[in-house]
Amino acid sequence: MSNIVYIGTSLDGYISAANGNMDWLTYVPIPEDDDLGFSRFMAGIDAVVMGRNTFETLMGFGTGWHYQKPGIVLSSTLKTVPAEFTDHVQLAGGTPADIVNLARRQGFEKLYIDGGRTIQRFLQDDLIDEMIITEIPLLLGGGDRLFGSLEQSLGFKLVNTEVLLGQLLRKHYLRKRD
Amino acid sequence: MSNIVYIGTSLDGYISAANGNMDWLTYVPIPEDDDLGFSRFMAGIDAVVMGRNTFETLMGFGTGWHYQKPGIVLSSTLKTVPAEFTDHVQLAGGTPADIVNLARRQGFEKLYIDGGRTIQRFLQDDLIDEMIITEIPLLLGGGDRLFGSLEQSLGFKLVNTEVLLGQLLRKHYLRKRD
Repeated sequence: MSNIVYIGTSLDGYISAANGNMDWLTYVPIPEDDDLGFSRFMAGIDAVVMGRNTFETLMGFGTGWHYQKPGIVLSSTLKTVPAEFTDHVQLAGGTPADIVNLARRQGFEKLYIDGGRTIQRFLQDDLIDEMIITEIPLLLGGGDRLFGSLEQSLGFKLVNTEVLLGQLLRKHYLRKRD
Repeated sequence: MSNIVYIGTSLDGYISAANGNMDWLTYVPIPEDDDLGFSRFMAGIDAVVMGRNTFETLMGFGTGWHYQKPGIVLSSTLKTVPAEFTDHVQLAGGTPADIVNLARRQGFEKLYIDGGRTIQRFLQDDLIDEMIITEIPLLLGGGDRLFGSLEQSLGFKLVNTEVLLGQLLRKHYLRKRD
């Protein structure tokens, strides 16, 4: 099993702006045919785990399920998903450990953990094994942060860095448990 | 004139732990004779600007002024400095712009801006030109953050990255004003 974070942040660690503004995400212009390696990443994972907020944002786009892989949406309130999602998404509740167990029973070994609150919950339970963080060189100055409070510090090993488009810094970490 | 931040942070952007614990700073062991390029950096700057908190921490070490260059300590409350600092440090008040003007009148062109609150004040007034941030691959999970709220986002250009001791990621940014 491996639970992987793959996300973009501002230089000051935000993943979304306070006002919902998304302009900062294109501070470094990204060519339309360049997915910055996302489809290669997706090819290596088995399922996407996301919280209700992230799922509702996705539903708001009105373009269906974006991923080539099945989704597990964490929610204690949602009871059903719209018809265009039923073939792709299952709802699940419980702790991060419950979700990991559910996924394992279904044969999903590599999980893409997405969405700020979900990532923070998994980190609080030390259930993140790998993080691929792509940093936009901009101080956003407010919004939702990727990282929040932890009961205990968590050490990682920096296994790779890469500069994309001359400006985006991709950092690849593995959890170091000793 | 150039105002430069040179600082270490955790992977989640903290510069000090909530409880004052400093163990995390040696999460990646640093050989005693390796200053990670600090003296080379100091050779290129003219003066160190720091807030009262950082200065008082330094005084607490009981080993005098640590730097080869003069210091400007920002404080509206301190009236004097201990005798061992009088040859090295001047006290100054006012806004970051006032400090920059004071420094310029004294011939200090390149300023090392140190201490969390001071860095945040300079960033709020868009008076940081360059940042050299060395990231320790550890989620600290609490403490004082390097970056705080800003009225407006600030774009930077990533000019260099370097991995030190196989684990510490040094990122070098220049402020991009257009």
